[in-house]
This record gives sequence, structure tokens and C-alpha cells, in this order.
Amino acid sequence: MRTRPLKVALLGCGVVGSEVARIMTTHADDLAARIGAPVELAGVAVRRPSKVREGIDPALVTTDATALVKRGDIDVVVEVIGGIEPARTLITTAFENGASVVSANKALLAQDGAALHAAAEQADKDLYYEAAVAGAIPLIRPLRESLAGDKVNRVLGIVNGTTNFILDKMDSTGAGYQEALDEATALGYAEADPTADVEGFDAAAKAAILAGIAFHTRVRLDDVYREGMTEVTAADFASAKQMGCTIKLLAICERAPDGGSVTARVHPAMIPLTHPLASVRGAYNAVFVESDAAGQLMFYGPGAGGSPTASAVLGDLVAVCRNRLSGTTGPGESAYAALPVSPMGDVVTRYHISLDVADKPGVLAQVATVFAEHDVSIDTVRQTGKGGEASLVVVTHRASDASLRGTVGALRKLDTVRGVASIMRVEGE
Amino acid sequence: MRTRPLKVALLGCGVVGSEVARIMTTHADDLAARIGAPVELAGVAVRRPSKVREGIDPALVTTDATALVKRGDIDVVVEVIGGIEPARTLITTAFENGASVVSANKALLAQDGAALHAAAEQADKDLYYEAAVAGAIPLIRPLRESLAGDKVNRVLGIVNGTTNFILDKMDSTGAGYQEALDEATALGYAEADPTADVEGFDAAAKAAILAGIAFHTRVRLDDVYREGMTEVTAADFASAKQMGCTIKLLAICERAPDGGSVTARVHPAMIPLTHPLASVRGAYNAVFVESDAAGQLMFYGPGAGGSPTASAVLGDLVAVCRNRLSGTTGPGESAYAALPVSPMGDVVTRYHISLDVADKPGVLAQVATVFAEHDVSIDTVRQTGKGGEASLVVVTHRASDASLRGTVGALRKLDTVRGVASIMRVEGE
Ligand SMILES: NC(=O)c1ccc[n+]([C@@H]2O[C@H](COP(=O)([O-])OP(=O)(O)OC[C@H]3O[C@@H](n4cnc5c(N)ncnc54)[C@H](OP(=O)(O)O)[C@@H]3O)[C@@H](O)[C@H]2O)c1
Ligand SMILES: NC(=O)c1ccc[n+]([C@@H]2O[C@H](COP(=O)([O-])OP(=O)(O)OC[C@H]3O[C@@H](n4cnc5c(N)ncnc54)[C@H](OP(=O)(O)O)[C@@H]3O)[C@@H](O)[C@H]2O)c1
Repeated sequence: MRTRPLKVALLGCGVVGSEVARIMTTHADDLAARIGAPVELAGVAVRRPSKVREGIDPALVTTDATALVKRGDIDVVVEVIGGIEPARTLITTAFENGASVVSANKALLAQDGAALHAAAEQADKDLYYEAAVAGAIPLIRPLRESLAGDKVNRVLGIVNGTTNFILDKMDSTGAGYQEALDEATALGYAEADPTADVEGFDAAAKAAILAGIAFHTRVRLDDVYREGMTEVTAADFASAKQMGCTIKLLAICERAPDGGSVTARVHPAMIPLTHPLASVRGAYNAVFVESDAAGQLMFYGPGAGGSPTASAVLGDLVAVCRNRLSGTTGPGESAYAALPVSPMGDVVTRYHISLDVADKPGVLAQVATVFAEHDVSIDTVRQTGKGGEASLVVVTHRASDASLRGTVGALRKLDTVRGVASIMRVEGE
Repeated sequence: MRTRPLKVALLGCGVVGSEVARIMTTHADDLAARIGAPVELAGVAVRRPSKVREGIDPALVTTDATALVKRGDIDVVVEVIGGIEPARTLITTAFENGASVVSANKALLAQDGAALHAAAEQADKDLYYEAAVAGAIPLIRPLRESLAGDKVNRVLGIVNGTTNFILDKMDSTGAGYQEALDEATALGYAEADPTADVEGFDAAAKAAILAGIAFHTRVRLDDVYREGMTEVTAADFASAKQMGCTIKLLAICERAPDGGSVTARVHPAMIPLTHPLASVRGAYNAVFVESDAAGQLMFYGPGAGGSPTASAVLGDLVAVCRNRLSGTTGPGESAYAALPVSPMGDVVTRYHISLDVADKPGVLAQVATVFAEHDVSIDTVRQTGKGGEASLVVVTHRASDASLRGTVGALRKLDTVRGVASIMRVEGE
């Protein structure tokens, strides 16, 4: 074993960073044995230098992250600050100064992954980010390496713990969205401003990263269709139950059946209770991967939290350190397939549509005609009268999102349709 | 991209090998792009040269595997013959001749893993074997790499599809063992001689491999306690149901609570229906991993079959080829922890014991005394009279296997105990 230590600069010492530092200290011997050299925490960059940080030598703490990264003797920079800047500049500066990088920053990678990978390649250094998607769950390494000889066709996952907690609560208690969100906030599962989670931004960033790796194609955040889950109601859950389904916020990355394009999207969807993702409870994450040869795989575990996320960061740290010792780098960006990313209108799936209609003869015929005119074939219809008005639930066969939108637009124009109560996609069948 | 191809020698072209060859041909362009050089099938060793093999150039087929491996221009040897010899000698010959090796051979790796790893290290070449455990499920790479910065405490898995198919049938239809085995055989899930599966030998080999990697300690096949599932009865399933459990054949690798030793074992066990492993159906495999920082992870997928297993082999092939191109090797054996492997008697778990006893006053007191004398604390007792005889079901608190054995031995000596109908461990609580 080499005795000269590898030097690690930790940028950020919050929820994740403090756990990374803790494990680096408590498991130092194991890390050294597994890497083949000791690793040393060479500096810790934070915003508030005076904050007491248990187990961290105050002499290591600095507010000048740039100077730390530029020191010249840093082997690996661990970026757990989050957000776009200064994280982006710090990472590129790290490469320019000869360091490899481990990051947990999904927002940054989804937005600027290509540029960061290019900077890493230019510097001949590693950029690893297992922690950016689904916390502790090994997902990027299995997709990038274990399935490197296979053809992935679909990635379907619950990749945001906050929204899964809320939806699980709504499902199990009949609570409404606001009530479930309040509980999630009280228990620390939702942040004070939950927008990034409940509007699907966080999941969309992960979908972009997963689609890029799964399909060997660059997929940017803007390519990902995104719909949040704030409009999901208790009534939607009741409808889902009647269909033997529950509702999850899903990230779905798919290769078109002809193989010539891909799509990536995030939205709430009904999935059958028999689907393994249906039983993912609380803040847990799970990702289903379908490939040509392997078939259906599922990866399940805690999708966030300081210590689970630190586990993923440290796995990357060990790999990157080993690569440095052997003078090599791991697999970089693989975007050779360069498939076009199709818009949401091209996505083909099934729909569950609830309409409020006038309760009089001929209405069903009218509605059915609109579906037919837009080439959307109906699977089942359920009509429930409620005095003068009726509720009409239509479940379609597979159709394109564009056709569905056309159908709904035309339905809204019918005098007899009082309102479109909800439209929800049905997945995982 | 390099244009000179990497040369692959395929040893064995049966269920797995034929799929490896097929994917190498049909996905040649993708493999080349992901590796950075084309891969060429340079030779295929089989036993029966005249057998027609679709898609394989007959000029590549040979019965002289040794000569193929010694050719001198082979970059990677893929060993999918199975069994101990000639596979072992072929692999060491491959290393001596400068090739790296990918294998799916759990029997060989469980028995001789240390020697094979030593040969690989000596030759400075890779030995990869993701396909040896749980077929297509990425498990070895996540354990070895993703969790390299974490401390794994427990691996609990369904790693044999044949026995899971049989137990699932017994559970869902009430069938007996023989009936369920016959169906598994008819459907091709069980081999003509099912011994390796139903007696737990296959699962024990996988347990040895998993424990070795998880605990950074050499664990040999002989270190693994093994009990098959041929004695599991419909009555056991009925008892399990009453406890809210089902029965699975589990491979369990554990670190002792004090961290100073490890155990590895394979046996049928009751697990609660609420445990994620309880809902693993048919021939699927799933492995639960518990670690300090990551918490509970689960990996699920097809545990066998030509094409899923080939997916894992090809993932390894891509990794090994990349390593060769960059002149490096991946992580080798990690056995630095060298923890002692404790015998089964030291395992601490709960037990479900069914006794046939005389139905008269004082019997329960007698039985309870025997448990107390052996320091095994009782959780619940259920007595059902059946005219002169009674059935007594005892579920214990956690106790050592040695104490339990002592208890059962003493119970058998009691006049009032007519027989011990079954002893089953209770796991996953
Ligand atoms: N938390 C999770 O469960 C989780 C899961 C997966 C991925 N991630 C990702 O991990 C990253 C970190 O998340 P977190 O939850 O640990 O965030 P956090 O608790 O808010 O910690 C952020 C840290 O960065 C420091 N910091 C902020 N601005 C800085 C600057 N300009 N220069 C130097 N340091 C600065 C902060 O310093 P002070 O301590 O002085 O405020 C703090 O230590 C994010 O990319 C996040 O998306 C988090
Ligand atoms: N099948 C699965 O689902 C699965 C799953 C995981 C791991 N594995 C492992 O993968 C390996 C292969 O399994 P398999 O199911 O593919 O076995 P298989 O169908 O029995 O194929 C074995 C192949 O090896 C060839 N062979 C046998 N002895 C040979 C010798 N002395 N020299 C050269 N070739 C020889 C056979 O030739 P012929 O074709 O001429 O008979 C055949 O092509 C085993 O280690 C197994 O444990 C299998």
C-alpha cells in the first residue's frame, strides 16, 4: 500500500458533506485498504465558517472554495454544495488544476452535463456522480457498466422521495394534497419551499441524467417533459383504486419502438397495484430498467438523506482514487448514439380521463365520436349519474399524447361537457 | 476509435454461450462504440463440434479449448462451460497466456476463487464474474464498487430461481414439494437432476461469493452452512401463513453484531409477507443488502436464463476490454479484512418449531422448561388438540443456533414429545 495519502477537498459540509466527512474519518482504515492508499481530508469549503461542525478540524474549514480547489495538491474534489454556481466553476477549476471530481449535483449535471464531461475528458480526469440520482441506490454504475453490453429500452422510476411520501400518504389515508404536504414538511421530508420536488423539477433533472446514460445520447433538462403532482386529488386516488391502480410520480425514459428516437418525461401516473413500483412506500425510491437481454431489473433503496447519499459519494470516491493510483480514468460520457429526443406529443401511452357531462341521452355518443375522430380508441367507459350531471370516466387504449391533447381540446368545446376533471396517464402495464 | 479488434475466445456455447455469441454479433457496433474498439469472436470451444449452431461460423468452432486459449492473440477468454475441470485449468492457462477472463461459473469461483484471483493478480489481468451470482442482476459490481465506501452488514437474498419457483407454487396453490418440483421440471425451470438447486448447493456457492465480496474476507464453500428445501411441506406453508409469513430459500451473509466475525448460510426460512423478498415470484431472484450508511437496498431481476446471464457476461466483457485498452485492471480480490467465519451454531435468529405432543396436563410446562434450560426464550405458543395428541407450535425470541439444537435434542428425549414435525428459522423481521 502506498503511504502518501490522496488529498480530498470537500466543497460543502451540509446534510451530505458532513456525512462524507464523518465516514472518511470513522472508516479511514477500510477506505485505505480498499483504495490502496490513505485518503486525507485536505480542506472543507463552506459558507458559514463559524458554524460548529462536529468532527471537523476547524483548521481545515475555509470560505474560499476557489483557493482550495486551486491549491494544486488536491487529488479529488467532492462537490456537495448544490445549485449551478459556484459549483460549476469550481468543478471546471478542479479539472484545470488536475483533480478528479465526485459530485451529487443533479441540477448541475442535468443542465450542463455535456460541458462538464468535456472538461473532464479534456483534463483526462474522472467525473463521477452516482449520488445525483436516487441517493444510495447504485443506478448510474449498473446502467453505465453492468448493462454496457445490453440495450436498455426503458427506465421507469420513482426518483423523488418527497413526492412519493406525499402520494403514499394520500393513498393510504385518503388525505388531500395539502394535508399530505403539511405532514411531509412537519416530518422533514419536504423543504420549506417544496417547488423543486412537487413540481417535478428534481425528478426531471434525474430523468435527463438517466436517459442520457441509458440511451448513450445527450438528453438535456429542456428535453424532459415535466408535470408536477400538485393537482392530484383524493378523487384521482379513488378512481385509481377502482382500476386496481395507485398513483406515483414517475420519471420515464423510453426508446421508441423503432429504436430511432427517445423520450424522457416526468408526470404523475396510475400504475397497477401488481407492479413492483406500486409497493414502494414512504420516501423510498425505486427504478425499473427494461433491456433486451437482461429483461426487467429493479433497484430499490433510500433515495435521499445525508448518510445514504454519502454512501454513494464514497463509492465514487473509492473508484476515482483507485483510477488515479493506476493512472487511468473510468468510463466517461457515452453519447455516440446521438438519438433525437422526441417531444411529448410523440409519447404513446394510455389515459384515464374524468369528465363532468350533462346527464342526457346522446352525450356518450358525442364524446365517443370525438375520441374516434382523433384516432384514440376507448378501452372502458364508466358513467355515474349525479342528478342532471354525470361523471364519465374514459380509459383509452394506447394513443399518442398529441392525439390525446387534440381529443381533450375538442371535448372541452362540447356544450354537454361541463369540465375535464382530470387526465392521468396509465403506465407500467 | 482503435480499428484493430480485441479478440475474444468463447469457451462453451450452450444456454449462456450461444446468447453471448448472438449478442456479440447483433450488437457489434454498439459494443465497439462503448469499448472504443471492435471485438471479434476469435474461436468457440465446445464438446460436440458437429452440432449445428445458428449464427456461429463453423470455422471458429473447436473442441480443443486449451489450444484456443494458448493461441497467444486472445485478449479475453469468456468461460461459460461450467463445472470445475477443465474450466479451472483453462482459466489459469488464459492468464498465463496474457488474456483476461470473464466467467459465469459460480461453482468454480466459490470453490477456488482465491486461487483464481491470485492467478489473475500474478498475471496482472482481470477476472470478472457478475453472471455467477443472480444472473442478470447487477450485484457484484454494486457490492464491490458502489458500496466500496460503506460497511455492509447483511446480504439476504433469493439467489436460486428453481427453488423460488417451487416454493412460490407451493405457496400459491397449496401443492406439495414433489408436485411443485414436477411442474418446475415440466416447464424447464428445474433440471432433470435438480439436486444442485433443491439441496441448496447452487445458492451456497453464491452465498460464499457474496459474503467474500461484502465482507472483504475469504469465504469458502465449506464455510457456508447449507440446508435444502426438499423437506418443506404444505403444513409448513400453512403455519407460515398463520404467522403472516411465507417461506423462501434464503442465502444469508451476516456480520456479527460486534463486527469481529461473519457467517454465511443457506436454508429455507419464514419471512414476513411485508418483507420485499416475500413478493418475489416465480423464478425471479432478489437480493437485499443492508449497510451502515446506505441502509436497505434491494436488487431484483431474472436470476438465470441464457439471455439475462449473457447480459451480465457482456457487461463484464465491455469493462474488461476497456481496461485492456487503457492498460489497467479493475478491482481484484479484496480480502484484507480477513474476518473469521463462524460456524452455524453461532448464528442468532428466531425459530418456529412444530412438535407433536401428548395431549395431557403438564406437557406445556415440561416443554417450556426445556427451552428455559437452554436459554431459549419463547415468544408465542399455540397448542391445537387432536384427540390424545396435540400439536404445539413454539416461536422463539432470538437465540443461537447451538442453543436451539440443544433444545431440540432435549425435547426429542421427552416421553411426552412424540416428534419434532418441523424446525424453521424466521428471518427478515
Ligand atoms: N440532502 C440529500 O438528501 C441529497 C440527496 C442526493 C443529492 N443531494 C445533492 O447533494 C448536494 C448537497 O446537498 P445538501 O443537502 O448536503 O445541501 P446543504 O445541506 O444545503 O449543504 C450545502 C453546503 O454547501 C455549503 N455552501 C453553500 N454555498 C457555498 C459556497 N458558495 N461556497 C462554499 N460552500 C458553500 C454550505 O455551507 P454552510 O454549511 O456554511 O451553510 C453547506 O455546507 C446538492 O447538490 C443536492 O442536490 C442531496
Ligand atoms: N444457464 C443459466 O441460466 C446460467 C445462469 C447463471 C450462470 N450460469 C453458468 O454459466 C455456465 C454455463 O452454463 P450453461 O447453462 O450455458 O451450460 P450448458 O448449456 O450446459 O453449456 C455448456 C457448454 O460448454 C461446452 N462444453 C462442455 N464441456 C466442454 C469441454 N470440456 N470443452 C469445451 N466445451 C465444453 C458444451 O459443449 P456442447 O454444446 O458441445 O455440449 C456447451 O456448449 C455455468 O458455469 C453455469 O453455472 C448459467
